[in-house]
Order: sequence, then structure tokens, then C-alpha cells
Amino acid sequence: MHNQHQIEKLNAIARLIRYFILVATTNAGSGHPTSALSAVELMAGLFFGGTFCFDPDNPDHPNNDRIIFSKGHATPLLYALRAAAGRLQEKDLLTYRDFDSPLEGHPTPAFRYVDAATGSLGQGLSIGVGMAINAKYLDQLPYKTYVLLGDSEMAEGSQWEAMQIAAHYQLSNLIGIIDVNRLGQRGETMYGHRLDEYERKISAFGWNTITVDGHSVGEVLSAYREALNSDGRPTMIIARTIKGKGVSFIEDRNGYHGKTLNQEELKAALAQLGNVDFSARGEIARPENLRPVNGQLQKTAKIQYSADESVATRTAYGSALNRIYPGYPHMISLDGEVSNSTRAARFKDQHPDRFFEMFIAEQNMAGVALGLSCRHKIPFVSSFAAFLCRAFDQIRMSRYSDANIKFVGSHAGVAIGQDGPSQMGLEDLAMLRTILDGVVLYPCDAVSTEYVVEAAARHEGLVYIRTTRNKTPVIYEADETFPIGGSKVLRSSFWILKKSARPA
Amino acid sequence: MHNQHQIEKLNAIARLIRYFILVATTNAGSGHPTSALSAVELMAGLFFGGTFCFDPDNPDHPNNDRIIFSKGHATPLLYALRAAAGRLQEKDLLTYRDFDSPLEGHPTPAFRYVDAATGSLGQGLSIGVGMAINAKYLDQLPYKTYVLLGDSEMAEGSQWEAMQIAAHYQLSNLIGIIDVNRLGQRGETMYGHRLDEYERKISAFGWNTITVDGHSVGEVLSAYREALNSDGRPTMIIARTIKGKGVSFIEDRNGYHGKTLNQEELKAALAQLGNVDFSARGEIARPENLRPVNGQLQKTAKIQYSADESVATRTAYGSALNRIYPGYPHMISLDGEVSNSTRAARFKDQHPDRFFEMFIAEQNMAGVALGLSCRHKIPFVSSFAAFLCRAFDQIRMSRYSDANIKFVGSHAGVAIGQDGPSQMGLEDLAMLRTILDGVVLYPCDAVSTEYVVEAAARHEGLVYIRTTRNKTPVIYEADETFPIGGSKVLRSSFWILKKSARPA
Repeated sequence: MHNQHQIEKLNAIARLIRYFILVATTNAGSGHPTSALSAVELMAGLFFGGTFCFDPDNPDHPNNDRIIFSKGHATPLLYALRAAAGRLQEKDLLTYRDFDSPLEGHPTPAFRYVDAATGSLGQGLSIGVGMAINAKYLDQLPYKTYVLLGDSEMAEGSQWEAMQIAAHYQLSNLIGIIDVNRLGQRGETMYGHRLDEYERKISAFGWNTITVDGHSVGEVLSAYREALNSDGRPTMIIARTIKGKGVSFIEDRNGYHGKTLNQEELKAALAQLGNVDFSARGEIARPENLRPVNGQLQKTAKIQYSADESVATRTAYGSALNRIYPGYPHMISLDGEVSNSTRAARFKDQHPDRFFEMFIAEQNMAGVALGLSCRHKIPFVSSFAAFLCRAFDQIRMSRYSDANIKFVGSHAGVAIGQDGPSQMGLEDLAMLRTILDGVVLYPCDAVSTEYVVEAAARHEGLVYIRTTRNKTPVIYEADETFPIGGSKVLRSSFWILKKSARPA
Repeated sequence: MHNQHQIEKLNAIARLIRYFILVATTNAGSGHPTSALSAVELMAGLFFGGTFCFDPDNPDHPNNDRIIFSKGHATPLLYALRAAAGRLQEKDLLTYRDFDSPLEGHPTPAFRYVDAATGSLGQGLSIGVGMAINAKYLDQLPYKTYVLLGDSEMAEGSQWEAMQIAAHYQLSNLIGIIDVNRLGQRGETMYGHRLDEYERKISAFGWNTITVDGHSVGEVLSAYREALNSDGRPTMIIARTIKGKGVSFIEDRNGYHGKTLNQEELKAALAQLGNVDFSARGEIARPENLRPVNGQLQKTAKIQYSADESVATRTAYGSALNRIYPGYPHMISLDGEVSNSTRAARFKDQHPDRFFEMFIAEQNMAGVALGLSCRHKIPFVSSFAAFLCRAFDQIRMSRYSDANIKFVGSHAGVAIGQDGPSQMGLEDLAMLRTILDGVVLYPCDAVSTEYVVEAAARHEGLVYIRTTRNKTPVIYEADETFPIGGSKVLRSSFWILKKSARPA
């Protein structure tokens, strides 16, 4: 049990956080105060209740617990928490949503305590899965990953992809918190306050579930302690909350999503908070100073193909992963249940501990890659080029997280023939070319594939590599260069449509 | 109970179907025989067991039961069923996967008994939801919708989106069949033959579940009868099957996904089938000759804005839906829980029976739209332009179904400002421009919006309309024309970067 003193202190901090939320959003004139108010006790209890371990002087410490706001619109709470920890001043909060303030309307890494950009709903849990996989299987560190989820976003299929994969990989170091405040943007969610609907589904997906009153600090603290003792299953804390909690005239009322109070309403709201202790500050526990298990950097082997060979570029991709891995020991391969086709299986066979099967769930795969990238891994993410379309929203969002991910789409173009348009990557180039600063690489033979895969690993940022199913002749020598940003002309002619001008 | 005679007859048809599957795929030299063989009894029992009602002379009959092969790679079975019904000859099956044959590797409407193209996994159930919504709420017809699902594709989040929405709309006329053959493309699925994993999850999602031995015709027939008597819940038949069933040397073996038998193996396989009765033919029951409830065509009102108004194009979109609806009584509005922002709410308020809330699940929303389009509705599908990226795979696939869908993305461009990049539609134009024959319309004021919304309703095919959040001045007169394919120049100058050249 928790002592009364701790609960009183947390309630005082919760009042201060509510004050910060209301003042910042009214000052900005836009934002989501009601969605932030519902999760105040859930997050104050996490940050300052002794569960969460984080060194605020070193946000990137490898053993820091991670927190992701999947309900990205709850930024007023995100920033208020850091203010309550003494890391921001009230005047900083008053820059909320200003043009050049790091305190953006939805979280991005412009704010130093944010790992991954969110705001397109239903993506945070996958990112958390990536971070939890990293802790358990790669860095082998005891840090925990927490994800704050909205109830409305539980309708996104990507959440259930993430849940099944988390259970599959037995991620007991992953803790989700659903802020069931009943109301979405335009009205009630599918399940309202029926917590049992969430509990039944989530426990059927293999998770440990705990339901709480999300405004009872005592219940919240108990839930986090219980979550830390999970038996190999990830834990979901399902919390009944009130949207707009603490301000009677917006509590649990439809039509108050994304609406701020005017000055007069703010005055009335602050009066309802009672005495705010402006000196209240929360203490965040510190993590053990542990470091990850690291692979050793070694030399990569030379590229070896002979001019009379024909090799599919997808096959060269699989070979290239193996060849370059010694030089890039942070590499990880993820594949969406088609590794025998994308040839990621070549890497999986040689480095099974660096390969994670993501099954047919491309959205979650992209989110997991982002989580791994946030923990300094270099994920190579492969599927058919056509099926990467499934993850377009996650791909575009990963850009705003400054992610270092390499997407690899196989079976590009109409050349796959008999399997028909559903399997053909025809839209992938346009899709990936929209990504700001994204790099798109399209090799034509085995040698160029080997080079662009290594260039992708070396380049910091989002890269897309497009591979072909059928064999193509090796046309380049091993000493050719393939810098990012270039292209090569194989032949040129005014009569490009004439048969004679086609490459042999 | 079923009489022994019926079961024997269905087993004879199943043998014939297996013969067709094996012969067609070996002749083609590519395709997925093992994935077809596992579902033979499931589909023979459905087609010829008396449950399924379909007039093969009139595949578009409004009261025909519908069947969707969500596991699109099972086409050898799809075509073999129609041959067993006497609608194709063996020589037709030998054109399987030929360049100009309608018997494509994955289903498309080129084959007259296919409504919707599949082949990108995890999309068929959403299409089925659309058809079932149509039957229950729009056409008010008793037809049923059946969806054959693979076990591996159950990992796609879109399946769970479809399941929650089907339960929400109480679609007891929707029956899914999962062919749990244990093996995906590159190995075992997450759950193998553990049917209880599927049953627990699916029943938690509010479905009636029935587990069967998928090779027992008797159990299969009983399951379909039970499904027809569901109590308001959709039904999922979860069938334990053997991949490659009937051919001992490929049964339940990994490494045989998408592999055909060579001539020698074919001979051995056919010998194992025993005596095939080539004269066996299945009878499909006929539907009642019922017609849908139809709205009455009326005149649409005139466009009325005055030159001194400023109106957001998203608002004009909502108004336009109401204005044109009398002239397009097949119109439906679907929205992803943001109808107050996209302004689809304007239509919902006036025509609640023509509006379906799809919650935050864009993939399923696009699939439902396709199902509605297959039943001759004109769905207008709205969300933030940014979030339509979530449905890109469904959007590209709907093209191959010759769909008649209007996607409408609001909050386009950087002008939404403070909410940040996660909410900005920046990639939508490139995404939609990849769609073959797709129409992209970007109106700048209320008048042009009204016109393009009507042009979209009139145009048969995929249309994308992009709307803006903020108010813009009305600059066109109501008698201006806005034909699809055109554009208008507001001002032009060599000095386009000069302030003076900007529109006021």
C-alpha cells in the first residue's frame, strides 16, 4: 500500500499539472486540454510514483525507461509533466504551439524528451514494441517501455497488430495505459465506458490486463507495481477516466475535443482547481547505469560477382545484408512473412538473433522499426514493394521522428507478370519520393544492389531500396561507385523505342 | 442432420475440384495449389450444400449471396468451383494465368463471378462488411455475404477493424470462414493449428464462432446452417485444415506455398485422388427474386454563394453532399471519426440513414466503401487527407475492382499550421495520382467545390477531392464550369514570386 503522504503529494502535483494544461492551451488558443486532463493522474502516478526510471539530464541514457504518447494530442500534459519535474518553466509552456517553439501541438523530437513523433493515431504501441524488443533481445537491458493510448485510437487495426506481436515476443517489459475517457473527436467511442470490452479483447490477445479508476492515484500506483511483476506477458492498464476532468463545465461533455477555454472560462476553471501549490515538484527515479551489449565492428568482405552471372537484385539484397553486417553491427532485419521472397531469409539464416519475423502486419512492422531506430539500431524492413503501401502512414510519420530506417520493397514493377497487379509494386516510387529528405535507390544488377545496400546502411535517415524478382545480368564491375544522388545511363539513343536500343 | 447421399455427392465434387486445382496449376506452372486444396470442402460445402443462393445466369442479381476470397491466392479453387457448377470447362481452366485469360492468378472482376479484386491480404473481410451493411441497412435484402479468409492474413490489423465494425453494426448476415491450414508463405503462422487462439480473440470481438474440421463435409454443412441462425452477431467459422490436403507428399509441409507440381508429381497426385467422377456437377441454390428498396431521383438545387463570402472548401463539401443527394440517391457517406472536421457531419445530420460512422479505422473504411461500390452505391469516404495514407493499399486495390468511390481528404497542405506535420495532408496528391485512371480534384473555393463534388458523383470511377480547413474567398460565379480534366489560372505573371502577384 501507498502512504497517505505520497498520495497527497501526487494529488498536489496533479493540480499543478492541470493548472499548466489549462494556462498553456488557453494562451495558445488551440490544442486539446480535455484529452490531456483525463490522463493527469495516470501520468503523474507513472512519472512521480517511483515506477518510472529516467535520467532527465541524459534523456538518451540506454537504460532509461521510455514513454510514448500514442495519443499525441495530449501534448499539454506531456509538457506539463516536464514542468512539474522542474525541467520547464511556466514561461516555456506559454510558447506552446508557437511557430518556432519545440513545444509543438503534437509531439516531435524537437522537444528533447520525445523519442518519436506521434499524432497520427494508433502508432505508438508499435513503436513501444520496437523499444521493448530492443531491451529484451538486443541491448538486454531492464528498462521498461510505457505507451499512453487513447480509447478512440484502439479502433485502429495497427494496435491489434502490435498487441499480437508483443504477446508473441513475450514483452513483459511493455506496459500500455488506455485512457478510456469515453469520448472521441466527434462523439462517443464504440465502447464508451465499458472497460470490459477492452479487457476481454486485450486479454484474448495474450496480455495481462488491469482495470483502474484513472483518477485514483492509489489505484494507479498499484497498477504500475503489478505491471512490473508480469509473468512474461505485456500489461495493459485500462483506466476509466473523465474527459476534461477537474473542470466541471467541460467534464465528460461531447463537443469539447480540441477546444480551448477563453480567458473567462479559464478563470472559472482555475477557481475549481482549488489551491495550486506552485512549489510542488515531482521526483523521477533514476535508472541503473547499465550499458547495452554491443556487437563488435569488423571489416566487411569484398563484392564478388562475375560478369557472366545473372542474379536477381532481391537475392543480391539478401547477400548484401550478410556481407555488410560486420561493418554495421547495429543492423536488424524485419520482414512481413515473405522473407523467402524478399531474400531477407539469407540474413535470418546466418543471424537469427538479428532477425525478427513480423508476420503479415506491415503497419506494425514499420512502427517497430521506428522504435528500434529510436534505440540506435539500423532496421532493414522488407516486404513486397506493393505491400509496403500498407504502412504509408507509419512511413510518413517516421520521417518526423528523424528515423534511420531502410525500407526494401521486392517484386517491383510489372515484370512479375502472372501474379497480377495486386502483387506488383507500381506505386512505391511515388509514395517514397514524397518523404522529405528520403533517399530512393533502384539498383539494376547484383553489384549495384550490394553498393546501394551498404550506402543505405551508412546513410543516416530514411532510405528506400527497390528490388526485382527476376534475374538480371551483372553489368557492373566490383570497383564501380554508386553514390547516393547519382544515376547511371546504360545506353542512350534518340531511338529509344527501337528494339536495337534495348539492353541485351 | 445431412443424409449420407448428400455427403457422398459433395465428397465426389470435392475430388473433382481437387483434380481441377492440380491440373490447372501444373499447366500454368505457377500458382498456389496447396492453399486451394485446404479449403476444398469448406467451399464445396458452401456452394453446393444448399446454403449459398446465387443465380449464375445473373451474377449481379441484387439478392444473390456474395462470396469473397480474401485469400486471393486460392484462385485455383475459385475457378474449379465454377467448373464443378458446370460454368467452366476443363479447357477454360487450362488458360489459368495466361496473359489474356480472365482466370488471373489473383481474382479480379475480369472473371465474371468476382466482385472485388483481392490478393493483397487482409482486405476481403472489410469488403464483406460493406456488402453486409448494404444488405441490412440500404437494399434491405436477405442475401448473405461470405468471406473466405486465410489464417496467415489474420495478422493484418485491418481484419480486426472489420470485425469490430461488423459487430458494431450487428451484421448477422456476414459469415467469415478461416481456413486454418497452419502454414503461411515462409513457415508456420503465429498460432499454428491452435484454433482456440482464433476463437478467443474473435468471440471477444463480438462474433459468434464455430470451430470445425474443415475436411469433414458434415461438420462444414452444420456450421453453415448454424451461421444462418445467428442472433444478431456475425459468424466466424474457424476450420482446422491441412495445406495441400489430398496429396500426401505436399500435405502440411513447409516450403510448398505457391509451388506447383511438375508433370510427374501431378501424375502421382492424381493417382492419390482415386476415381474422379468427371460427370459430377454441383447445384447452387437460387435466391428469392427480390429487389432493393430504391431512393427516388429528384432535381438538385442550385449553387448559391455570394461573392463577398469566405467559406472553407471542407464546409462547401458538406453542403454539396446535401445539395446533390436528391440527384444521386445511391450516395453514401462514410467517415473516420472526424465528420465534424471533414464536414461530412452536415450530410449525416440531414440523412442519418445514408451515413455510416467508421471510427478511427481508415483501412476498413476504404474496404467497406469498395463493398458498397460493388453493390452499386456511390460512397463518399472522408477523413483528414493525411490519414487517408493509412488506406493506401486498399485504395490501390480498389482500382483493380473498377470501384466507384470518392475519397475526400480534408486539412490539406501546410495551412493547418499549429497542429503540425502529423495532421497535414502533404503526400495525398502523389498517392492518389498513382491510381490508374484516377481523378484528382482540388477546388479552391466554395463554388468550385460544389461543382467538383457533383462531377465526382457523376463520374464512374475513383475520384479524390482535396479540401482545405480554413475559409477561402468565393471567387467563381455560380455559372462557371469545372469539367474533369481541366484547370483554371487565377492570375499569371512572370514574377510569380513577387508579392504583388499573389491572389488577394
